[in-house]
Amino acid sequence: MIQDDLTRLSAVDAARAIRDGRISSAALVQACLDRIAKTDGQIRAWAQLDQDIALAQAHEMDRIRKSGKATGALHGVPVGLKDIIDTRFLPTECGSPVFAGRQAEANALIVDRLREAGAVILGKTTTAELAYLHPTHTTNPHNAAHTPGGSSSGSAAAVAAGHVPLAVGTQTGGSVIRPASFCGTYGLKPTRGMISRSGLLRTSGSLDQVGVFANTLEDMGLLTDVLSGFDAADPASFARPRPSLLEGARSDPPVAPDIAWFDMPYHDRLSEDARDGLDAVIEALGARVERFDAAPQLAGLTDVHKTIYDYEIARQMEQLVADHGATISSEMRAAVRRGLAIGEDQYQDALAVKETADAFFVEHFNDFDAIMAPSASGEALALSEGNTGDAIYCTIWTLAGLPCLTLPLLVGSTGLPIGVQLIGAAEEDDRLMRTAAWMLRSLAEEK
Amino acid sequence: MIQDDLTRLSAVDAARAIRDGRISSAALVQACLDRIAKTDGQIRAWAQLDQDIALAQAHEMDRIRKSGKATGALHGVPVGLKDIIDTRFLPTECGSPVFAGRQAEANALIVDRLREAGAVILGKTTTAELAYLHPTHTTNPHNAAHTPGGSSSGSAAAVAAGHVPLAVGTQTGGSVIRPASFCGTYGLKPTRGMISRSGLLRTSGSLDQVGVFANTLEDMGLLTDVLSGFDAADPASFARPRPSLLEGARSDPPVAPDIAWFDMPYHDRLSEDARDGLDAVIEALGARVERFDAAPQLAGLTDVHKTIYDYEIARQMEQLVADHGATISSEMRAAVRRGLAIGEDQYQDALAVKETADAFFVEHFNDFDAIMAPSASGEALALSEGNTGDAIYCTIWTLAGLPCLTLPLLVGSTGLPIGVQLIGAAEEDDRLMRTAAWMLRSLAEEK
Repeated sequence: MIQDDLTRLSAVDAARAIRDGRISSAALVQACLDRIAKTDGQIRAWAQLDQDIALAQAHEMDRIRKSGKATGALHGVPVGLKDIIDTRFLPTECGSPVFAGRQAEANALIVDRLREAGAVILGKTTTAELAYLHPTHTTNPHNAAHTPGGSSSGSAAAVAAGHVPLAVGTQTGGSVIRPASFCGTYGLKPTRGMISRSGLLRTSGSLDQVGVFANTLEDMGLLTDVLSGFDAADPASFARPRPSLLEGARSDPPVAPDIAWFDMPYHDRLSEDARDGLDAVIEALGARVERFDAAPQLAGLTDVHKTIYDYEIARQMEQLVADHGATISSEMRAAVRRGLAIGEDQYQDALAVKETADAFFVEHFNDFDAIMAPSASGEALALSEGNTGDAIYCTIWTLAGLPCLTLPLLVGSTGLPIGVQLIGAAEEDDRLMRTAAWMLRSLAEEK
Repeated sequence: MIQDDLTRLSAVDAARAIRDGRISSAALVQACLDRIAKTDGQIRAWAQLDQDIALAQAHEMDRIRKSGKATGALHGVPVGLKDIIDTRFLPTECGSPVFAGRQAEANALIVDRLREAGAVILGKTTTAELAYLHPTHTTNPHNAAHTPGGSSSGSAAAVAAGHVPLAVGTQTGGSVIRPASFCGTYGLKPTRGMISRSGLLRTSGSLDQVGVFANTLEDMGLLTDVLSGFDAADPASFARPRPSLLEGARSDPPVAPDIAWFDMPYHDRLSEDARDGLDAVIEALGARVERFDAAPQLAGLTDVHKTIYDYEIARQMEQLVADHGATISSEMRAAVRRGLAIGEDQYQDALAVKETADAFFVEHFNDFDAIMAPSASGEALALSEGNTGDAIYCTIWTLAGLPCLTLPLLVGSTGLPIGVQLIGAAEEDDRLMRTAAWMLRSLAEEK
């Protein structure tokens, strides 16, 4: 009844099997560690991994279950954490030699939420330097000559490689959706403010958002529901009721959803296989998708995102660059130079435009259940290109704080995965999940 | 389908009716405010009440529901908070003129948990001075010449009077169970560390615990589940999975539970009607209850509780007493004098005995599902006695951090309610709720 290879279990199934006593958390965690030992020499998805610490958590979760005490929603299920998320029991190095061996004094709030849900923190996954652009050594599990995308490189690669069923990342531009697309996993960044950022490396207070990676839609919902919660210490957080994304993934829409597609100026950067694949999806969904030319103010939001990001990251990282000079990448030093050149007026203008964008989207989602969009430019770039790919397909949605997810629906011309992005209304992440589940079913029937 | 008097709805039913759109939160909150206006002149359960602030929250919850966005487990349901729980939108005066008009800068963590669940904070309920012994002006809703008990006086009285379906209190000795017993409501103090105390007046770091009042067992479960959660800032809090008390209240035990009763030396202080009532309950449950003479070390725990409480409250309140002299009650000044006379050795010894007690109870609950005990000495005392009653029936269980609840099962010789207490295993609050539900059903069938 339980398949031999425990690493192939979804998180939902693994949690149920552990709860029912059909498998132990220790066996599952050991299977993950074995798989990592076998394949991570090439993939290099893990920044911090301590077998003993991981197994000790698993044994503790098994002990709690056997005692008859309460089990959590992720009881005994291993999770990987991007190495910008503070943990008290493992270093947090943020992908930079500047933070080598750095030991946080407290867990990030979301780490404690995971512990409260019974999850096993398997280890810390690699990140592009300071969750920005300079790549980590991680390779794409589908082809080691290609990037896994970034900045949440290790989280995407670890889930794609079956090292762990769930991983947490962050997105300021496209750092969850793009690596998920490149690695062929599901990826989700919920509504801004749903998940606390306390105890995470800050790059841009206005834009940084937490997201998740998994191999099924339901698994993303389960993990997001566990992470989601108010945090008075995070200015973006809100103390309002949160939707259940797992329930959303399991629901049927009351009527077939309406999906919008905007032809954006930057779509000329799409690869041919991505364009063809997206066209095929649109065609398969027929009348359910309405195609629009992007209004100029919509396309202009990519510049607004860039202004806010550069301005804020420069002020976050200025001191670090001053203190550590060449130990910091040229990408980051350039960002700080660019950002410091942005004046207060220009920054305030950008924030004001962002407000109008929020209003635009509120209107839009009265008529549509979701926006469909590319997740990335196409297949994962070759490592030789020296970067983790273009975030532009994600920046508008990140700027607006909208929930967005990527579905691993397409295969590119060289056999690498390509994701399809869906964007939903703010604080209606459950409706977005419902629409995604509908789309997966519709396309499966189509085949 | 919905009864005319909305204040008679349970919280579970009210939340469902609001979610389904059969009633509005504004109508429910207005009904509560009307009832308060009608009866609180005599009961005086409310320390802070602002109709506009309460109704504004209700309208916001109605707006969220109508928007189709997520609703919370307590969506639109009013809750009262003991006035030692910090709120940003209402003063927190802790039942003392020393704190008159005191405005907290931040909400207590549990206030934000309530907001996240969609609850309406109706207002702040009266407390004995500094959550200790000196009574508030609140009267018992069943008879205005009697005390509602304390220190969570207003929370118990407000729920008993139908002012609000749910209220939050705290217990360091017996400050939840006793007022619930005196006022004829259900009362529950879950396992120590389940609910955060950040943002609450501290009297004893080792003993202070949060509890709830409601008019049904399920309502207590619902409220506790909302409040329950890890808080890294509270040293008693634990980051382990939490049981669902609502599910517990709705479950059947796998086999008929086994209940223990200990005859304690202090039971000679029980009133005759309380003793007779408890005996009748024991008799009705027949072979399910086993009666024990209390081991001396068990009875001795009441002194251990007193040592820890006095020692700790003295150090918390010493400065306040020094600064405010006669503005502080003689009860509190005496406690500070007593506590300061306790040496470090005596205190450490008491803490050590407490550890052995915890081990005793772990053993005990292998054989029994619950302990049955008196909730209080009997009916509510007359106001003329000048105190809120004897906490001794609760102190051992509070000391051990065990979950305990009181069921409003008995009526005393003058017609006032008397509760019956059940105590469960630590972190198995769901099992305690299941046992309580079974007991309610068994006794109802008996009649």
